[in-house]
Amino acid sequence: MQLGIQNIGVYLPEGRASNLGKLAEFEIDETFVVEKIGVRSRSIMAPGESTTDLCVRAFADLQLRGGPVPEDVDCVVVVTQNPGANIPHLSARVHAALNLAERCACFDISLGCSGYVYGLSAIQAFMAANELSNGLLFTCDPYSPIIDLADKNTSMLFGDAASVTWIGKSPKLVGGRFTFGTLGSEHAELTSASSAGPLSMNGRAVFNFAARYVPADVKELLAINSISVDSVDRFIFHQGSKYIVDTLRKLLRLDPEKVPFDIIEYGNTVSSSIPIILAKDLGESAYRTFVLCGFGAGLSWASVVLTRPSDL
Amino acid sequence: MQLGIQNIGVYLPEGRASNLGKLAEFEIDETFVVEKIGVRSRSIMAPGESTTDLCVRAFADLQLRGGPVPEDVDCVVVVTQNPGANIPHLSARVHAALNLAERCACFDISLGCSGYVYGLSAIQAFMAANELSNGLLFTCDPYSPIIDLADKNTSMLFGDAASVTWIGKSPKLVGGRFTFGTLGSEHAELTSASSAGPLSMNGRAVFNFAARYVPADVKELLAINSISVDSVDRFIFHQGSKYIVDTLRKLLRLDPEKVPFDIIEYGNTVSSSIPIILAKDLGESAYRTFVLCGFGAGLSWASVVLTRPSDL
Repeated sequence: MQLGIQNIGVYLPEGRASNLGKLAEFEIDETFVVEKIGVRSRSIMAPGESTTDLCVRAFADLQLRGGPVPEDVDCVVVVTQNPGANIPHLSARVHAALNLAERCACFDISLGCSGYVYGLSAIQAFMAANELSNGLLFTCDPYSPIIDLADKNTSMLFGDAASVTWIGKSPKLVGGRFTFGTLGSEHAELTSASSAGPLSMNGRAVFNFAARYVPADVKELLAINSISVDSVDRFIFHQGSKYIVDTLRKLLRLDPEKVPFDIIEYGNTVSSSIPIILAKDLGESAYRTFVLCGFGAGLSWASVVLTRPSDL
Repeated sequence: MQLGIQNIGVYLPEGRASNLGKLAEFEIDETFVVEKIGVRSRSIMAPGESTTDLCVRAFADLQLRGGPVPEDVDCVVVVTQNPGANIPHLSARVHAALNLAERCACFDISLGCSGYVYGLSAIQAFMAANELSNGLLFTCDPYSPIIDLADKNTSMLFGDAASVTWIGKSPKLVGGRFTFGTLGSEHAELTSASSAGPLSMNGRAVFNFAARYVPADVKELLAINSISVDSVDRFIFHQGSKYIVDTLRKLLRLDPEKVPFDIIEYGNTVSSSIPIILAKDLGESAYRTFVLCGFGAGLSWASVVLTRPSDL
């Protein structure tokens, strides 16, 4: 049986910081905040809340949706570039917090906004090669600790969150072929020197990169999966900003109904942005075929087609 | 054709720091340094030398051994917990430095001394699932920037290095089944809070963990691969210290000739310790069957059997 997505748990901290208080400081108006950035308030992890806590709370949400019992979990992968500590890997700390089995394989993947799609391929391939049955793919990349609040380029965008995707043998969605790419020559456009930050982003360069590379990548993805644009029910793009999602939708001439934009009350949650939306869409049986596309730090991108196994 | 190890490039910085100058400070003698720790001098990266530089120099060594031309590389994975910067991933910076293709998939894996074995499985599985042909698995985890030189537990052990393993379709060695494990409950025994360190290690606890878990793991590995201890030519253990390698050899009753200890002039190079030895052994045609076993931060461990494809 092919491995795929059985369910998804999500955790958004309750804390919010409003962007509307920044209008005067950055000489912008509310229309810009709502229509261009698309983020009115940003989710902020609580003081003392750790990256391990974020993952544990996402797992608790997965449990409410019928997730696996901890003793059955045999693989944990956490996608993060802000793990909270460099050594050991966050997946080992999550392993401890969830009291997982000794024979559970754990590692972290360092990727940013392309990380969920890369991670889906990496964990499924690793599990299949090693005959594992119940994997947890976490995304947990809180940016609030590395943001300079005086930086107009980054301080109104990002929200803290975590997600966990249960990979198993009774999937609701299975992956087709993936595409991956890297434009390392532009890696300096989005950086954080240390685990203390600060994040530095050339927003214009990252936008131009996405607008140039993502539409061509999606077309190639559809071609290698032998499906048409019309047969896709949902295009879930990384939620970088409203402006980039709108731009990608227009460049690809997609039906607006098919292209969710969800982040106005919590912000760009990096590698969690796609699974937060997919968690909602997973239960909608009318949605049969999905395209996921992540893009960001690296600069890098990754895309995949997901379908209902009963449609194969 | 099964993917496997085509060749390995290695980079050890020329700089060395001697442990013999620390005898008085730590109230130890030379016998302890040579026979217990097994590290007389530690390799140290040069001031201004970056993690990207270490990887590029390992790749240059691979090129001398007939490595792939950069335009053919379609996958790069870097194993590190000291990437030099948190964002972006080190593999993207290496992608830029080597001028790799846009369709090259790149990500980092965060693991310590078990990372090479985990990484072998992860990159091979990822490449097979995505039909990739020429992968580079780097290890690059320089500890000198995070070591407190006054800490007796950590300051005499570690050396800086990098390696790159070319994964392709004309392998010299192919993997059998892997074993993986995690003891997250003891993760606090080996930590570094931030990218600036300092490394903190309970050496006794990590030693006890390895002496308890690794022999049982190796026995299980041999069983699931249906091979005997006698049929293995080389047991390459992570080179944590001379004392742990000697202890594992004795607990498993292995022929000393089969168990290399190599690090006296450069130190424990974390995830590079196994590939540095394997790079030498790869060309020895008398060595047909290898066991690799890594263990460390997490706490975690991973093992694999490698064989010559012509023997399958």
